[in-house]
Amino acid sequence: MKLLSTLALALLATAASAQESAPQATPTSIVAGAPVSDWRAIDPANLLVMTLAPDSSGKPRQVVIQLVPAPFSEGWVGNIRTLAGQHWWDGTTVYRVVDNWVSQWGDGEDDKPDAKPLPEGLKVIPESEYTAPMTCEVYKYDGKVLDERCAPAFAAIEAIDPYVMQGQTGFSGGWPVAFMLTPEGNRIWPTHCYGTVGVARDLSPDTGTGAELYAVIGHAPRALDRNIAVVGRVIEGIEHLSTLPRGKGEAGVYDDPALKVPIVSVRLGNDMPEADRPHFEFLASDSASFAQLMKVRANRSDEFYKVPAGGVDVCNVPVPMRRAASR
Amino acid sequence: MKLLSTLALALLATAASAQESAPQATPTSIVAGAPVSDWRAIDPANLLVMTLAPDSSGKPRQVVIQLVPAPFSEGWVGNIRTLAGQHWWDGTTVYRVVDNWVSQWGDGEDDKPDAKPLPEGLKVIPESEYTAPMTCEVYKYDGKVLDERCAPAFAAIEAIDPYVMQGQTGFSGGWPVAFMLTPEGNRIWPTHCYGTVGVARDLSPDTGTGAELYAVIGHAPRALDRNIAVVGRVIEGIEHLSTLPRGKGEAGVYDDPALKVPIVSVRLGNDMPEADRPHFEFLASDSASFAQLMKVRANRSDEFYKVPAGGVDVCNVPVPMRRAASR
Repeated sequence: MKLLSTLALALLATAASAQESAPQATPTSIVAGAPVSDWRAIDPANLLVMTLAPDSSGKPRQVVIQLVPAPFSEGWVGNIRTLAGQHWWDGTTVYRVVDNWVSQWGDGEDDKPDAKPLPEGLKVIPESEYTAPMTCEVYKYDGKVLDERCAPAFAAIEAIDPYVMQGQTGFSGGWPVAFMLTPEGNRIWPTHCYGTVGVARDLSPDTGTGAELYAVIGHAPRALDRNIAVVGRVIEGIEHLSTLPRGKGEAGVYDDPALKVPIVSVRLGNDMPEADRPHFEFLASDSASFAQLMKVRANRSDEFYKVPAGGVDVCNVPVPMRRAASR
Repeated sequence: MKLLSTLALALLATAASAQESAPQATPTSIVAGAPVSDWRAIDPANLLVMTLAPDSSGKPRQVVIQLVPAPFSEGWVGNIRTLAGQHWWDGTTVYRVVDNWVSQWGDGEDDKPDAKPLPEGLKVIPESEYTAPMTCEVYKYDGKVLDERCAPAFAAIEAIDPYVMQGQTGFSGGWPVAFMLTPEGNRIWPTHCYGTVGVARDLSPDTGTGAELYAVIGHAPRALDRNIAVVGRVIEGIEHLSTLPRGKGEAGVYDDPALKVPIVSVRLGNDMPEADRPHFEFLASDSASFAQLMKVRANRSDEFYKVPAGGVDVCNVPVPMRRAASR
């Protein structure tokens, strides 16, 4: 304990007093103790179920993606609903895997003459929609969100973030987000973390349709924030993307076509038969349990940890997620 | 560009003026243009070569680890030299793989009666050696290192880090590090990033021998900083650890023994035959090229990026590394 900073000691004291009723709280104990009322169901209509071909030993591979909620990336999410509704991804592949970066899927031939035709009705979305307005009337910075009227409800991480020097990171609607004062007022956006799903694109001003998607399989590529559309996150089955062989072709594309992983189907949860429909819950980011979770993640002080950091980054507070009974 | 903060604009202007002679610099262009004098050779004596059994298609799997330089973790690194010199890891396995966390290897039965006996002469290292003294005479914080006399030479990242609220992150000797004012003065330590190799341990005050090691295969687990011994980093072949199936047993240990990956051998580079000896170079962290790299990583403004973040975290500036001719 002798390397503890005074700041860390102060934060630890805060954590310790909060823990009087729950000594040595850990992320696991907080999640286990969270009351039912702190959990929120995810509408299956906001889940995307991607079924990959079975692996070499015949085991099934299913990836479940939660689509980002409004007000974020609504145009691209609309396109993704259209693509899934038309079964567009069926027969496409996971064609690019880069270590400590992304796994990417879709046609993969979209810049070639034999590109798979896209369905009609997809929208072209402008770069301005990488972020959304944040409706706070007052904004100033002292390490906390000051205006309780901020909407959507925002739970702030009490630490500075290197990617948001004039703003703040935290959680809104169970999603890791950042906001910042810009010339257009406060703007808020979902951050890139492990498991984040985004829209692959060519050079700006192209923003991508949503047909070519990637999932982050490494250290959070936060420099992509505000530069690419975040449309979801993998909430189950990320290992079916993160354990794939890394591509050896240009930019990590599989140069050996045999490595491409066939996508059997991608369906919206509500388009699936009742028995197969996925039901998940997340720990509400505006709940007391989540507030305690953020504190403990920043001040690990159970038996294993001897020096609490005194801070945490938004991607090191994964939002707890669990399977729920169908309802 | 319309969401740019004034701070980001200022930083972008700095970056733009630095780029006058190298328009739209990217990490790739900086590394390609770095003069020979900005590269430093790694002594093969500081490399550990781990050969795993070939994969299911018969392809060889080799992982190269650079040991952390002095003044960091010297006791554990000494133990690791002893273990490698005695060929202790030969016949052990990679036995634990947790998604977005670590791959771990060694005996894996070290807490059981049939544990593999350790060689004599391993040292027991105290927790105080998770960090090292930093010999600055003056210390105060304004977003930069103020004392040029700091040793080891320190290249600061010009952004605040949530895990080092009263300190600074940057690079020393080509290694990502953090330092902070503590009651014992300035202490400096290697940070946990993707690919970092650390010493698995039981509960404190145990600090581990170095026989059971892990490599980070996900988002930087910075809460482990100062809580565990960092002894190296994977500089080649991380995909042989990051693509392994995730363990389904307790704490991600393989419950199916057939999944354990046999370790054929682990050797120090200088104990290998001349022809097999690995030769690598890294981009010196006190070079002009590296200073430009840090700026560009914090202010990506090439064609793909439209909004520079204005900051970066220490784990998103991977130290450039390359194979070198033997000498």
